[in-house]
Amino acid sequence: MTAGYYAAVDWGTTSFRLWIIGEDGAVLAERRSAEGMTTAAKVGFHAVLDAHLAATDAPGHLPIVICGMAGARQGWREAGYLDTPAALSAIAGSAISVPDVDRDIRILPGLAQRDMRHPDVMRGEETQLLGAAGTLGTGRHLVCMPGTHSKWVRLSGETVEGFSTFMTGELFDVVSRHSILSNSVSDGGALAGNDPAFLEAVSEATRNPALATNLLFSVRAGQLLHGISATDAKARLSGTMIGVEIAGALATAGSIDGICLVASGPLGALYHAALESQGLKVQHVDADDAVRAGLSAAAGAIWPL
Amino acid sequence: MTAGYYAAVDWGTTSFRLWIIGEDGAVLAERRSAEGMTTAAKVGFHAVLDAHLAATDAPGHLPIVICGMAGARQGWREAGYLDTPAALSAIAGSAISVPDVDRDIRILPGLAQRDMRHPDVMRGEETQLLGAAGTLGTGRHLVCMPGTHSKWVRLSGETVEGFSTFMTGELFDVVSRHSILSNSVSDGGALAGNDPAFLEAVSEATRNPALATNLLFSVRAGQLLHGISATDAKARLSGTMIGVEIAGALATAGSIDGICLVASGPLGALYHAALESQGLKVQHVDADDAVRAGLSAAAGAIWPL
Repeated sequence: MTAGYYAAVDWGTTSFRLWIIGEDGAVLAERRSAEGMTTAAKVGFHAVLDAHLAATDAPGHLPIVICGMAGARQGWREAGYLDTPAALSAIAGSAISVPDVDRDIRILPGLAQRDMRHPDVMRGEETQLLGAAGTLGTGRHLVCMPGTHSKWVRLSGETVEGFSTFMTGELFDVVSRHSILSNSVSDGGALAGNDPAFLEAVSEATRNPALATNLLFSVRAGQLLHGISATDAKARLSGTMIGVEIAGALATAGSIDGICLVASGPLGALYHAALESQGLKVQHVDADDAVRAGLSAAAGAIWPL
Repeated sequence: MTAGYYAAVDWGTTSFRLWIIGEDGAVLAERRSAEGMTTAAKVGFHAVLDAHLAATDAPGHLPIVICGMAGARQGWREAGYLDTPAALSAIAGSAISVPDVDRDIRILPGLAQRDMRHPDVMRGEETQLLGAAGTLGTGRHLVCMPGTHSKWVRLSGETVEGFSTFMTGELFDVVSRHSILSNSVSDGGALAGNDPAFLEAVSEATRNPALATNLLFSVRAGQLLHGISATDAKARLSGTMIGVEIAGALATAGSIDGICLVASGPLGALYHAALESQGLKVQHVDADDAVRAGLSAAAGAIWPL
């Protein structure tokens, strides 16, 4: 077995993932848990990390590279932001060291767009971007990273020109649970990208994004007047939110050479289908692979072999 | 003192208002309470109404005309919907009688737009519309009735061609209370229509409605990066929601002779300022006056003097 080279950690708001990486780049061990920033801020970041390292028998000297919310102000130690326009190659060099621990632990910074009219921030996605950029080559790319707060990044070569966050996932969640639509969608089943109700809603919202909050109400009215099913109602809610996001991202993209979707699982499949339904060709990169590739690139820059 | 002619009731989801109207049209007595449909569905609609009538010493024979959620399926007795295109003059004739009570009690119907792609419903606003229409004259008017579910009605003479509901008020509420923006806006003070942060957000969202959910996130990012105040954050959230609504309503309006705003109080002032900031000339009708005028028109048609 190859020797451990470093541990890579993707520490989100509600999730923790750790990989032990060998000198040949192989994944020697993996840990996943729900001990994200929210939990770790109470239990202690060091304690959470140590427990997972112990479970993998990682040697005491193994250095650790971390991305995500562990670097937020309310995280382990604030890792600040790189300002846009930002070279992805500058991320590793701007990592901060966690003091007073018996290991070399680095936390990568987020990205900030300080434009007064379009302020924006990301933390964690910059590392996915660093990992995905290697597969994109030169040219101007629009990179979509869907989620609670979807990020759309305007990437020119390895430089982040700017980006826009859309609150799609969070709005889907709060509208589903706390609005008049909760009755309409609560019994809805799982969504599939080829669902006609989903794709129609994507098209309608992409064509008429100004009608976003009207299209949401029509989900309720459609149930009252036409008895649409809970699953169709949920598909329309989801398609409307994603369609508005696509319209907004394209409106601010400028001229691009390609669209890259960095996403995993069912959400990735929904976005892939939504984008293709709008005639957009998409290069799909798995988000897990991307974040590991990004952490690996940073580790290689910080601790060259 | 003039004799009582009828009682007019505007029975919303969370509010109850009753006026005793004289034969000369004067308001002889008024009652207001929070016993809307939600409360009355538990306590009993008849009991709530009787208590308020008793408090006004209304004679036992006085007939009652009611609009609003008392006519919903989950209300006192379902009053159905008039389908669009609908003549406002047909509202009174489609009122239903409440059976098994010792008075003549009529509940006015709502309006339904059964278009499969743009289904929509209103209940209560059709009566405001009936009241406001008298002041508009001929021509094609766009009538804005802001609220939890804002209604924009395309009115040609006295015919409702169609309408669109925007979930503006409800989304403002759920985003303020349940999303990541709750921290940013919870300490915000009262909003005024001439607040620059509000008007800038209206303009930005009206120009770029596709960016709606991005503009919402920028409220949070603006607080993180530029320390904008809670009141400015709240003004931007409100301005963004109202701006997107205006953009959507105008996009579907077609050619119009005028815009009429039917609204009261601070919300009316915010919408008036938002619309005028977009160069739109607005005829402002008080919503309380409009609903009473509408109930009066219906009463006059049902019980001619």
